[in-house]
Amino acid sequence: MGKPDGLMTFFEPRGVAVIGARGSPGFGYGIPLVLKRNGWGDRLFLVNPRGGMLHGMKLHRSIEDVPGEVDLAVIIVPAPSVVEVLDRVGSRGIRHAIIESAGFAETGPEGRKLQDAALEAARRHGIRVIGPNCVGVVNTANRFSTIEVIDEAMERGSTGIIAQSGVFGAIMLDMLHEHQLYVSKAVTLGNRVDVDECDMLDLFCDDPSVSVIMMYIEGTADGSKLRQSLHRLAGIKPVLVLKTGRSARGREATLSHTASLSGEDDVYRGILRQFGAARAESLEELIEMARVFATQPPPAGRHLAVITSSGSLGVMATDTAVARGLEVPELSRDTARRVLEGSPGWMNVRNPIDVGPSAQFPVALKAALEDPAIDMVLAITVLPYAIFRAVTAKGSTGENWFGDIGAIKAANPGKPLAVCAVGHQDFVRRMRALSGTSVPVFVSPEPAVKALASLYEYSVFLDRSAGC
Amino acid sequence: MGKPDGLMTFFEPRGVAVIGARGSPGFGYGIPLVLKRNGWGDRLFLVNPRGGMLHGMKLHRSIEDVPGEVDLAVIIVPAPSVVEVLDRVGSRGIRHAIIESAGFAETGPEGRKLQDAALEAARRHGIRVIGPNCVGVVNTANRFSTIEVIDEAMERGSTGIIAQSGVFGAIMLDMLHEHQLYVSKAVTLGNRVDVDECDMLDLFCDDPSVSVIMMYIEGTADGSKLRQSLHRLAGIKPVLVLKTGRSARGREATLSHTASLSGEDDVYRGILRQFGAARAESLEELIEMARVFATQPPPAGRHLAVITSSGSLGVMATDTAVARGLEVPELSRDTARRVLEGSPGWMNVRNPIDVGPSAQFPVALKAALEDPAIDMVLAITVLPYAIFRAVTAKGSTGENWFGDIGAIKAANPGKPLAVCAVGHQDFVRRMRALSGTSVPVFVSPEPAVKALASLYEYSVFLDRSAGC
Repeated sequence: MGKPDGLMTFFEPRGVAVIGARGSPGFGYGIPLVLKRNGWGDRLFLVNPRGGMLHGMKLHRSIEDVPGEVDLAVIIVPAPSVVEVLDRVGSRGIRHAIIESAGFAETGPEGRKLQDAALEAARRHGIRVIGPNCVGVVNTANRFSTIEVIDEAMERGSTGIIAQSGVFGAIMLDMLHEHQLYVSKAVTLGNRVDVDECDMLDLFCDDPSVSVIMMYIEGTADGSKLRQSLHRLAGIKPVLVLKTGRSARGREATLSHTASLSGEDDVYRGILRQFGAARAESLEELIEMARVFATQPPPAGRHLAVITSSGSLGVMATDTAVARGLEVPELSRDTARRVLEGSPGWMNVRNPIDVGPSAQFPVALKAALEDPAIDMVLAITVLPYAIFRAVTAKGSTGENWFGDIGAIKAANPGKPLAVCAVGHQDFVRRMRALSGTSVPVFVSPEPAVKALASLYEYSVFLDRSAGC
Repeated sequence: MGKPDGLMTFFEPRGVAVIGARGSPGFGYGIPLVLKRNGWGDRLFLVNPRGGMLHGMKLHRSIEDVPGEVDLAVIIVPAPSVVEVLDRVGSRGIRHAIIESAGFAETGPEGRKLQDAALEAARRHGIRVIGPNCVGVVNTANRFSTIEVIDEAMERGSTGIIAQSGVFGAIMLDMLHEHQLYVSKAVTLGNRVDVDECDMLDLFCDDPSVSVIMMYIEGTADGSKLRQSLHRLAGIKPVLVLKTGRSARGREATLSHTASLSGEDDVYRGILRQFGAARAESLEELIEMARVFATQPPPAGRHLAVITSSGSLGVMATDTAVARGLEVPELSRDTARRVLEGSPGWMNVRNPIDVGPSAQFPVALKAALEDPAIDMVLAITVLPYAIFRAVTAKGSTGENWFGDIGAIKAANPGKPLAVCAVGHQDFVRRMRALSGTSVPVFVSPEPAVKALASLYEYSVFLDRSAGC
């Protein structure tokens, strides 16, 4: 059953009871359906005092009536009924509850009273609680989900997601697969009366199925606890953090949303930096960083080579690299010679290596990846679509222009590589296919460079920690 | 024939000669094809000394043999032959040439000599030149294009594009339509021996078909000329600028690419700010700004209302708004009352207005747009896809959740509105349909707020200019 404190049970229950299952639209209808669809029918028990049937399953009138080994309750009843439900759950011997109901501290003083009473009831029975005001968890390994996710989101991956808000967690699961990011476990925490982001960081720290952690928080209740959890994780696996409530006005908004005290932003900035957590400044940046951290090794240094078929985009990448503390050094004589062999006379073999409309792209890509003075590579693949369409109409996959990027990377696994494909969406799709799952493809040069720079900063932290 | 200096002839020639047309892959094959496909067959004349036929058209052996009223030559011959071709073009009485050939100053001293000789030949004959090392122009109004563009890029719009690099211009044309940005005229300038970005700014300034200008430059040859052109444009139509070569390393790269001296970045920053040109810090930001500038009026002030169905995304938007100098003020009592009518008890009517999973989204959107204390609105539409799919499976378009956003905007045309739809790509697609062509839809909150903030900054510039 996993960890001593039993938090793994939230992700690996033997059986689960959904309390507040019902035939009308909402979580009470959707969650039983998603569990049944994912093969949990024989370990799933639905509770509704009115009895009857739902999705071809019996609705038990009370949690006491539920048979079998159940060690997780998913509670979807209205807020004022939650205390009573927790008492019954506790009496039934269930020690884990996900309270999805809203209407607690996030709504004001009355809701806070209900929340305090719920926490007291849980403590009385020794029940660990996720929520309230959340949508719970996903575990792709055993296809367990208390979130109404789409099937694409259940594809197995190695990303761990910690989100405070339920809606936010749900829409992340809706979109991450479109960015080739696949999930191991995800949790949404809501108002965090008991289980918080630190507990989940600890759990994911020890979980071999999680290799990178994405965390969205609006605030933390206990700064020293966060510090401890990040300290444990430091050097073991990367943590990418989107922390909002940076502005006073934003902090007011978080209060009415998940009842968070989000604290002064500088404090978080300091803690995150101290323990090597990588901070994203926007939702897009969080996703972009995760794509690079999930697939690329830390670079050995700050030297970036840019291979491009568009001079302009190479300049944009260079500007961003310099702004973020990377270097775009001159190529070694040996690399320059390799690239020049067979190249047209007009080609400039500097860095960025602008191969233009030549056949030298894969040659330059290989040479840069194999150059010991280069630590990481950005490959900018660009070709006007009218030309690309003519080429591919003859059956090519684009490989004859840009090479088999996935295979070139596979032969050089030790160095980070990102691809930037700009242009028509069909062109981008083809470059994704050419790059395979082990090379992230961006659609603009600056975000690709920024994500590589974050990975470099993380590698500096690792070196520094190792040196201690 | 347009402007006195005749530069409009580049976009509206009576007839066009393509010199270097040929049957092998490349511009010489593709450009005649794109012109023919766009209805220019009877005004298109192909030249190749070897004679014969191409795309069912006669290949004239010399420009002297070309009949009809031709006032533009598109030159695609190798660099060393360009001077001779220009002499023949001039003798034939043609006074406009687009030199697409590369191999000039961007390749080094030998190329620079060829370029100087070409400029001298052009001056001898009074030929205005775009290029070399470019792909020329597009005019969607008469479907004229010397660029191998795809048909989607020829859809008529009001955006004017000035790009230094040919490849960059071509890939912009490949992708802008995917962002609902449509082009009036586009030009790629290359090495700019004659016509430069200032000439094009002047032309677009007086062109009623252009309402917003997107410009990508790596540098400018004549700072005072740029100053004059921007001064003329100031207050007439917005100019969005992506200027690269911000770093010394980036400037070195521009030199080998379009032979630009890109100059110290601070100088550009000063000039752009002085004349109200909006500077984009990345390619994505350029496109995002253009989407808002092309569709939304300048706001009357800095007060932003955020309507959201996700508290988290509302906080992210608020953080970005405050960082960019906008205010997210409390709602007026009247607006709060309107939103509260019929809303569930848990709803917080502050700003951001977090309507959660209620039916209040369109109510709040209308109330905010009609509130005299609010200057602009961001509508964040979010719904977990499993729920959205269930709703839309019953035939709804999402309108019952979020309202007919396009119609709500149409009833309130005076205030800027942007939509942010986060989640599954099908959800985003549906939100695009719901928002119509007059409301830009973003897929992340921060870029939407940044684009609105740039529009606000432009409005401040307009007010200040009007006050002078």
